[in-house]
Amino acid sequence: MTDLPTSEDVRAAAARIAPWIRRTPTIAVTGPGARPVVLKLDTLQRSGSFKLRGALNKLMRLGRDARDGVITASGGNHGLGVAWAGFLLGVPVQVCVPATTPAAKREALEATAAEVQIVEGGYPEADRTARNRAQREGLHYVHAYDDADVIAGQGTAILELIEDAPEVRTIVVAVGGGGLAAGATLAAEGRRVIGVEPYGAATMYDALRAGQPVRLAAIESVAADSLGAGQAGALTFAVCRAGLDRVELVEDAALLEAQRWLWHHARLVVEPGAGAGIAALAAGLLDGDPGPIGVILCGANTDPRKLPL
Amino acid sequence: MTDLPTSEDVRAAAARIAPWIRRTPTIAVTGPGARPVVLKLDTLQRSGSFKLRGALNKLMRLGRDARDGVITASGGNHGLGVAWAGFLLGVPVQVCVPATTPAAKREALEATAAEVQIVEGGYPEADRTARNRAQREGLHYVHAYDDADVIAGQGTAILELIEDAPEVRTIVVAVGGGGLAAGATLAAEGRRVIGVEPYGAATMYDALRAGQPVRLAAIESVAADSLGAGQAGALTFAVCRAGLDRVELVEDAALLEAQRWLWHHARLVVEPGAGAGIAALAAGLLDGDPGPIGVILCGANTDPRKLPL
Repeated sequence: MTDLPTSEDVRAAAARIAPWIRRTPTIAVTGPGARPVVLKLDTLQRSGSFKLRGALNKLMRLGRDARDGVITASGGNHGLGVAWAGFLLGVPVQVCVPATTPAAKREALEATAAEVQIVEGGYPEADRTARNRAQREGLHYVHAYDDADVIAGQGTAILELIEDAPEVRTIVVAVGGGGLAAGATLAAEGRRVIGVEPYGAATMYDALRAGQPVRLAAIESVAADSLGAGQAGALTFAVCRAGLDRVELVEDAALLEAQRWLWHHARLVVEPGAGAGIAALAAGLLDGDPGPIGVILCGANTDPRKLPL
Repeated sequence: MTDLPTSEDVRAAAARIAPWIRRTPTIAVTGPGARPVVLKLDTLQRSGSFKLRGALNKLMRLGRDARDGVITASGGNHGLGVAWAGFLLGVPVQVCVPATTPAAKREALEATAAEVQIVEGGYPEADRTARNRAQREGLHYVHAYDDADVIAGQGTAILELIEDAPEVRTIVVAVGGGGLAAGATLAAEGRRVIGVEPYGAATMYDALRAGQPVRLAAIESVAADSLGAGQAGALTFAVCRAGLDRVELVEDAALLEAQRWLWHHARLVVEPGAGAGIAALAAGLLDGDPGPIGVILCGANTDPRKLPL
């Protein structure tokens, strides 16, 4: 297995990608259950999610190797992140998109400079297509999460959070394939990091119980498009097992309620998966964890006209 | 006329209201026309707009005089600001709301602890009802903008902006009755302050041309509910005449386009009036003004499901 990424890699990534990302702000609010919460607004990041961070770090680390282009498979945020990174760095990008991807994300992708290929089926089919094309066309394949450079890049969001709000003692992140969660454990400087997954996409939860990444039989969640990785990565699992305090599970209804809460209390629109931290707070799952609680709002690639108010 | 508010009043207001407001963040983005822009996100303020600032300052200055309650007339943001301020400070609040108020704002008001009275007609009728009830019931009447304490309170948003982004050289605010604009001129520490109004609600623009507040014959704008003051205040006019660089006018279509821009480029939802600064930038009206440009996003009390995407 590749060397695991380190805290030093996250700091190096932060310096590397700084010219291209937005330094997104934080805001202190009273959260559900009257808990003091610091929201990290990476929903305002270019590309609409934190995924630009990992994508930029990856492409910049590839350097001349990415010259002829990169290819990836994604149902949304990662694809948008790579498309934006390629646009900013002048690297041609191809994205294989599952036909099951929500319209808002597909349309956002099609509005970028990337070449978008819709692939019949779900993420596994899109991924297979991307890997095949990578080999055939001599392109560099970029994994959505199981990559040390991607993990280090995602961690920069948490580095910024604790720089702006060092008083935060617990950090909560949504978990899909585990890239953000793994990066968070590397960046948290000893703070407690808790992952949150929907019951219907308990990828890291199941992996931690089994002691290794396991393939989910099915994924069923309103957040499937962002948190619906079928299996944790070897790298993300290893980093999360070492550094994550635990994974909590939330109902889909709690994710929708978190979207409502963020709109009514802070006029923020997030996609369902990005409501994970607020959902866990509202469910009382973090009642025993020390505050203030840092909550990463990680994506807003959704249609606000369909917000479940 | 009452003494005009001063910069010192704004600083005093900032200290006074600090325990009750959210310290809202800023974010640096590339704006329309590739201009460097710093957005002040007071859309994330409690009550959904900056109006909480002036309302809190007013009620705290009234102190024991507000004990028996206050009454105001408002089509939305100011009413929400006073309702929130009263809730936080333990002051009973009554709001007279014009029947013409958009549903999103009326429903938000009705969800507060304030007593809401819907008044047939527009703002003038609601205002008359509020003043009559104030006299009859011995309540303190709080004006939406023409009040030195309200003006000083609104200025605190700009004080925070330049504290977080001292590099800002021009500050752009939407103008309704002029409370925010007046407060901005007091808080800007010599920076250029520009007001923006819709063509259909050119309240301060017309006042500055006429050399005194004038009553608009009609108000027609998508932003009428937030920027549709029928006449500038005596105080706001005097402060704006002394301190405002100028007022620029924008089309309604540009306000809607600014809402779209803010969603597509920063995943922010604002109400039409709060798009004024971005609209002015996009129209090239600030091409001669020094950057970075500070843009106050002043309200998001709108239904995101109706965002004009």
